[in-house]
Amino acid sequence: MSKLQTLGYYNGSYGSLEEMTVPMTDRACYFGDGVYDASYSRNYKIFALDEHIDRFFDSAAALELKLEQSKEELGGVLNEMMRKMDSGECFVYWQATRGAALRGHAYPDPPRRANLWIMLRPAGVMPLDRRLKLITAEDTRYLHCNIKTLNLLVNCMAAERAKRAGADEAVFHRGGRVTEGTSKNCHIIKDGVFITAPTDHLILAGVARAHLLRACAALGIPTEVRPFTLEELFAAHEVVMSSAGCFGLAAECIDGRPVGGNAPELLARLHRYLWDEFIAETELGSAAT
Amino acid sequence: MSKLQTLGYYNGSYGSLEEMTVPMTDRACYFGDGVYDASYSRNYKIFALDEHIDRFFDSAAALELKLEQSKEELGGVLNEMMRKMDSGECFVYWQATRGAALRGHAYPDPPRRANLWIMLRPAGVMPLDRRLKLITAEDTRYLHCNIKTLNLLVNCMAAERAKRAGADEAVFHRGGRVTEGTSKNCHIIKDGVFITAPTDHLILAGVARAHLLRACAALGIPTEVRPFTLEELFAAHEVVMSSAGCFGLAAECIDGRPVGGNAPELLARLHRYLWDEFIAETELGSAAT
Repeated sequence: MSKLQTLGYYNGSYGSLEEMTVPMTDRACYFGDGVYDASYSRNYKIFALDEHIDRFFDSAAALELKLEQSKEELGGVLNEMMRKMDSGECFVYWQATRGAALRGHAYPDPPRRANLWIMLRPAGVMPLDRRLKLITAEDTRYLHCNIKTLNLLVNCMAAERAKRAGADEAVFHRGGRVTEGTSKNCHIIKDGVFITAPTDHLILAGVARAHLLRACAALGIPTEVRPFTLEELFAAHEVVMSSAGCFGLAAECIDGRPVGGNAPELLARLHRYLWDEFIAETELGSAAT
Repeated sequence: MSKLQTLGYYNGSYGSLEEMTVPMTDRACYFGDGVYDASYSRNYKIFALDEHIDRFFDSAAALELKLEQSKEELGGVLNEMMRKMDSGECFVYWQATRGAALRGHAYPDPPRRANLWIMLRPAGVMPLDRRLKLITAEDTRYLHCNIKTLNLLVNCMAAERAKRAGADEAVFHRGGRVTEGTSKNCHIIKDGVFITAPTDHLILAGVARAHLLRACAALGIPTEVRPFTLEELFAAHEVVMSSAGCFGLAAECIDGRPVGGNAPELLARLHRYLWDEFIAETELGSAAT
């Protein structure tokens, strides 16, 4: 059987992403009324899948979305789809939405089944030996950034601004307090301490962020979980951005000003730990997640 | 030819809303990356269509969405669809989205054509002789409420809270400053003055709000355009909610406390003016908008 370049899923129907269609009345289409999660695979193994599925269920619960599938069933569908792919390195994305209905702001009554969407396409994680160019952007998003919802327009606008500035990513701040990137958490290293913002309503509890904190614990690197400012960002020994696709990439400049580069050994230890973990968990012949 | 109950449109394809599908990769589906507008029809005439299309183009421009259609072409498509409907009283909704592409936060490069979606279904405007039950809700939305985007999840959450409280609508406030409803602007009448918040990034420049201000001017009712507080809301002589579907409905209670009812004559003059305008512009035989 020939393998697939891209693969989509909607409530049990499959097809290439180019040909997949969904009902016009799905509430994702006009309200963004849904939640998502995503990870990357290597050797056909989806990295940290259980953690991403746990967070997905947390997001769904926060919006009172009634999922039809159990965690095990969702994982089964994702792994089964992964095996059909031409490439073993994919971006594995899924979302659940509050059913299909005629447009009305209050939730459909009686409640509809949540619709499950899945999208797979070839993509690999970013190597850790490069450094990111960043810009800063006022954080004008809603106050529900702890939930991974489909209301991502402000993230898109800031990502586009970064791209036009020749940068890789934007870092949001609220009145000088750094929150996170458009699709990454943001952390700093200062005087040997790994500093990251608390998981309140202003940032997402990143899976990669959790891995970074566990790596610090394993390596004996002290951590502080507290808000930090733009001033601290620019004065950091290293600025570290993390996501499912980049684990913990360091920055080389922000708004055109050089940043970081002053804790290379500590950064290298973190990178080695994170990369080894990724390689070990996605090794050929290792237990499927 | 038999007329249609509901009618959808996507980039030139037509069908009932129940059967219409759209590409899974439309950026509306996973980012809410698009803008919309809507109005109501009577006698197959879409009320204030030019004003709604003007605002739609303003929203699109704010997001740098490149529309394929001119204002005249869009109006033509909407009016043509309206004529196919079984009912002359419809909710006429349309949106444009930033093309279909594989998921990536920055805008597709090269830019895709904007996708045009349209949805029509039977619905009439609300009669002005009823009063609304309201609740208050902390405004946790983004800071782009001046743009009519598809990122409406917080509006949905508050509308659902209102419904569960047995109310018709929620009124948002930011730290005590009233902003607007989940799908309506909010105004107060106090000591014979019509007071409405300025059109900054915290509220939408409602078409019905503009009609209310013009009605006040025509009727010699003084107006103040300034922020007002929750305290002023509860102490108002009337609380007035406006949208394309309700023009300027008064409230009878907020969070279970009676409000308004103390400027019935002024309210009646406004209602008569707004309703007469609606009836005249949607009369059988009047020029189509």
